[in-house]
Amino acid sequence: MSQAPRQLGLTTTLTAELFSADQPLRLAGGAELGPVTVAYETYGELDEEGTNAVYICHALTGDAHAAGWHEGDRHPGWWDTMIGPGKPIDTNRFFVVCSNLLGGCSGTTGPSSTNPATGRAWGLDFPLLDISDFVEVHRELGRQLGVKRWHAVVGGSMGGMQALDWSLRHPTDMCHAVVIASSSRLTAQNIAFSAVGRRAIMRDEDFHHGQFAEQGTSPDVGLAIARMMAHITYTSEEGFTEKFGRRPQNPGTSPGFGVDFAVESYLDHQGTAFLSRFDALSYLYLTRVMDYFDPFSAPDALQQVVEHPVSYLVVSFDSDWRFSTDHSRRIVRQLERAGLRVTFRDIRSPWGHDSFLLDVPVYLETVRAFLTNPSAQHPHVHAGTHTGGRR
Amino acid sequence: MSQAPRQLGLTTTLTAELFSADQPLRLAGGAELGPVTVAYETYGELDEEGTNAVYICHALTGDAHAAGWHEGDRHPGWWDTMIGPGKPIDTNRFFVVCSNLLGGCSGTTGPSSTNPATGRAWGLDFPLLDISDFVEVHRELGRQLGVKRWHAVVGGSMGGMQALDWSLRHPTDMCHAVVIASSSRLTAQNIAFSAVGRRAIMRDEDFHHGQFAEQGTSPDVGLAIARMMAHITYTSEEGFTEKFGRRPQNPGTSPGFGVDFAVESYLDHQGTAFLSRFDALSYLYLTRVMDYFDPFSAPDALQQVVEHPVSYLVVSFDSDWRFSTDHSRRIVRQLERAGLRVTFRDIRSPWGHDSFLLDVPVYLETVRAFLTNPSAQHPHVHAGTHTGGRR
Repeated sequence: MSQAPRQLGLTTTLTAELFSADQPLRLAGGAELGPVTVAYETYGELDEEGTNAVYICHALTGDAHAAGWHEGDRHPGWWDTMIGPGKPIDTNRFFVVCSNLLGGCSGTTGPSSTNPATGRAWGLDFPLLDISDFVEVHRELGRQLGVKRWHAVVGGSMGGMQALDWSLRHPTDMCHAVVIASSSRLTAQNIAFSAVGRRAIMRDEDFHHGQFAEQGTSPDVGLAIARMMAHITYTSEEGFTEKFGRRPQNPGTSPGFGVDFAVESYLDHQGTAFLSRFDALSYLYLTRVMDYFDPFSAPDALQQVVEHPVSYLVVSFDSDWRFSTDHSRRIVRQLERAGLRVTFRDIRSPWGHDSFLLDVPVYLETVRAFLTNPSAQHPHVHAGTHTGGRR
Repeated sequence: MSQAPRQLGLTTTLTAELFSADQPLRLAGGAELGPVTVAYETYGELDEEGTNAVYICHALTGDAHAAGWHEGDRHPGWWDTMIGPGKPIDTNRFFVVCSNLLGGCSGTTGPSSTNPATGRAWGLDFPLLDISDFVEVHRELGRQLGVKRWHAVVGGSMGGMQALDWSLRHPTDMCHAVVIASSSRLTAQNIAFSAVGRRAIMRDEDFHHGQFAEQGTSPDVGLAIARMMAHITYTSEEGFTEKFGRRPQNPGTSPGFGVDFAVESYLDHQGTAFLSRFDALSYLYLTRVMDYFDPFSAPDALQQVVEHPVSYLVVSFDSDWRFSTDHSRRIVRQLERAGLRVTFRDIRSPWGHDSFLLDVPVYLETVRAFLTNPSAQHPHVHAGTHTGGRR
């Protein structure tokens, strides 16, 4: 094992204007969007060939701060278990890039950004997005950073959708794609949960048809309800039972309609804490992107990746009911039918969908092995270098 | 098979004042409540011995109208698949009673009823309830109707909690208890879903600390959100997929934040339709009753029923994740450990928790057989009469 420090130190979120009003981003839906500013972080060093890079695609409510520490913060980046010196995505070896998603609310242009045509927030005039729009922004960021080819594109949940979509549309961009706790097609139940969350936001009296900022307010009740409900789907019944069971919040107090059970206190906290870091409009836009994601429905979806194979790791968690193992199996089946090489692991973990963010040792070692094991190397790239003498 | 008509005709909801201001209901929590008016329906005829009666305990959002038709209605009572001439709970044979729950909003005294002490709606001053309070009201109704002993007490979901609780506290009241898709103890996840629904209601700007009626309003947004979310938990992922899949609501229209998918339209309808028949305060009170239900936690919980055995049928559905089969198994285990006779069936059905309300033939036949098969008769009552010559 590496003797390097196990933590990145201070990290910084940078911004770049990747598209301008004159050279806008053309979206899958046909609209043009510019300027597009993107918030991102990088960890480690890009090598001379520009091929040791790993792109981290974040999930619904993630941001660019994937690892390391921001001055004064009490917690490191959201995937600090995964990324750092000596960690599965080893910053001693890889140049790691993570950016806040288009449509997001943590530094990248989104529906609460100013619409240059009106001087007001975009609100619901912001164009509808597609997973492929995220991918095009990621690609442009990579170009500007000098990346020639990604060693891997990695993501969990909606991040996995980006990794999958990117690999199908532009397979020559990467050697490996890592798709964790993700889905290639939401079920009616998945859509239903997101739909109720959106209704809670849009029917909040403070939503104001999306122009809440200029009213000096925000649909906090609706957004907190959406988050609380979604959070239930991110953990497992077993995980909740282990963590809270039926424990009262304040033993000895009379029953009522407040926070009687510990699990209620936890959910309230989840809802409230979310308000300070997330925007209701981004929540609408990003959940809707997922509803429509269905890459294998295009008849020629696999044509390019078959011609330029990418090596895949697909990971699911057995207690995940947000995107159950069946979702991952479907991805594996589609890829394998096309003759692609897929490593598939269903990992035992009690923590449900959230497992992809947690310290689940078998999972972390699986990702590490896939990214570093010579036998998992991309067949067309550096094969001799990496596998010579070790087969 | 019976040649009798398969439908009850018109049925009528009656009301009775079971407790008065002078002779109030003493609640488990210590408060006294009076008057208590109860809405109920009966089907079939009570026999001379007063022992052919079946009590139907309704679930969270049920009411007294379990079977038959109300003038002008487009749908029959909520359990018309189960109750009627020749049906599993056969009104040619049984005198069937169903009442709206205490705390409810369909004719029985509840938190939106007038508090005689103030002349206003009770609101959040209505006392907290317990499953045993429901049971005491059911018992009083039975006494007033002349029932000497219940052939069976039957209920699904929260109705099953009442049947179970009643059988444990007053086993001599009944021969059989039928506990369907129920639970003896909610999990943290169960509580979590109910808690988010309650938050949506109580944080609705129209809630007014529970005194919304005198403001001429009601927390419709919150109640609809609570219902939509709860409804997802009542069906199964498989059921949703079969019914809706990813079908668009209006093929060819552009994506947006309205009702793009058929499942969204269905949920919106569920939320809206609920508002015309249910009250936000009742939703708070009745969900909280379930959170606290935990009858086996009392050390002597089984003492009375062991002395006066009741014959149990416990039914679960394999796709129910609101109260999964594990909840039923726990009930069976507790009862069997005490030496009680329990018939347990886990029924295959794709429709999740809602299966208990639906036409699932194996399930309906299971209930029929349990209530009519001589070998299932209560050992202490009429054993000779019902089983003579047929063993």
